[in-house]
Amino acid sequence: MSDLDARIAFLLEADALKRVERRNPIGDGSRRENTAEHSWHIALIAHVLAPHSNEPVDVARVVSMLLVHDIVEIDAGDTFVYDDAAREAKEALERRAAERLFASVPELRALWDEFEADETPEARFAHAVDRLQPLLLNHATEGGTWEEYSIPAVRVRAYNAQIARGSADLWGVAQTLIDHAVDQGWLQES
Amino acid sequence: MSDLDARIAFLLEADALKRVERRNPIGDGSRRENTAEHSWHIALIAHVLAPHSNEPVDVARVVSMLLVHDIVEIDAGDTFVYDDAAREAKEALERRAAERLFASVPELRALWDEFEADETPEARFAHAVDRLQPLLLNHATEGGTWEEYSIPAVRVRAYNAQIARGSADLWGVAQTLIDHAVDQGWLQES
Repeated sequence: MSDLDARIAFLLEADALKRVERRNPIGDGSRRENTAEHSWHIALIAHVLAPHSNEPVDVARVVSMLLVHDIVEIDAGDTFVYDDAAREAKEALERRAAERLFASVPELRALWDEFEADETPEARFAHAVDRLQPLLLNHATEGGTWEEYSIPAVRVRAYNAQIARGSADLWGVAQTLIDHAVDQGWLQES
Repeated sequence: MSDLDARIAFLLEADALKRVERRNPIGDGSRRENTAEHSWHIALIAHVLAPHSNEPVDVARVVSMLLVHDIVEIDAGDTFVYDDAAREAKEALERRAAERLFASVPELRALWDEFEADETPEARFAHAVDRLQPLLLNHATEGGTWEEYSIPAVRVRAYNAQIARGSADLWGVAQTLIDHAVDQGWLQES
């Protein structure tokens, strides 16, 4: 197979990300979000909010990382962030998925590795955006997964405090939304 | 409203793109594609196939253009490319949508304008990818919209020949797929 044919085959296989369902709803609450449209949303958010990164970042690399980092879910599935057992198991699963899926596109494997290692300013900002987005949607739908799975505010704060590593400004936004959700009764303190 | 609040409001409004339905199916034929997941797919395709652009391009700008250019469909809806009357009406509708939606994010308006003007190497390659993607999906689903709306091969060739302006290589891929679809009876010559 030519390199171009192998790349087209990868791009067709990537289409399956449109069928991976996440736990959080889309913004009007009508259905759950899929990982492909989530990936579009976080790439757009990173582009629009990049000036709020703590450190200067190569915005293009953040965007590329966010377009690519969830493709492993085609093999590994989406892991609910508040399911601790599943989160431990997912690392090996996702690594195997990356080996297989990115075989013909090594430059995407490098982006995935950078995101997972979480050691560059770009990866830190990408992680911040990846956490902020479902929080925006859970707030917009007056509870979303927080309500559905009875996640207490203490866990939402602990998980999302990592946003501050990439962006103090966005962690400020997140805290305001969490506090507002508690006030409204969409999120319980404990 | 602060600039950050206005940007967050825009990013929440953009979520509605997940509810805009396109005519073409996703890769397994199980349902129609929505514009948000389409935007992710074309941005990924541009990233992976950028070396096949006729002219050297700033890949980051191509990707950003593709993440943004369909957001106007939130107000204007998706226009079926083989509906000539609708395509004529859409220009004014989309321009009005761009005025409203991009008011707080002028850098996205500039990307949309560049895509629409179609005068830079980046815009030409972005258009090529935006046309190749539904063709890949119509082929993968053994007919897709070609079959559903009885679009003849002569129209598919005429519309997609524009791919060659951005990438001779990708137009080669497209021609092979069109010829194969005709051979298989998934697409009728006339």
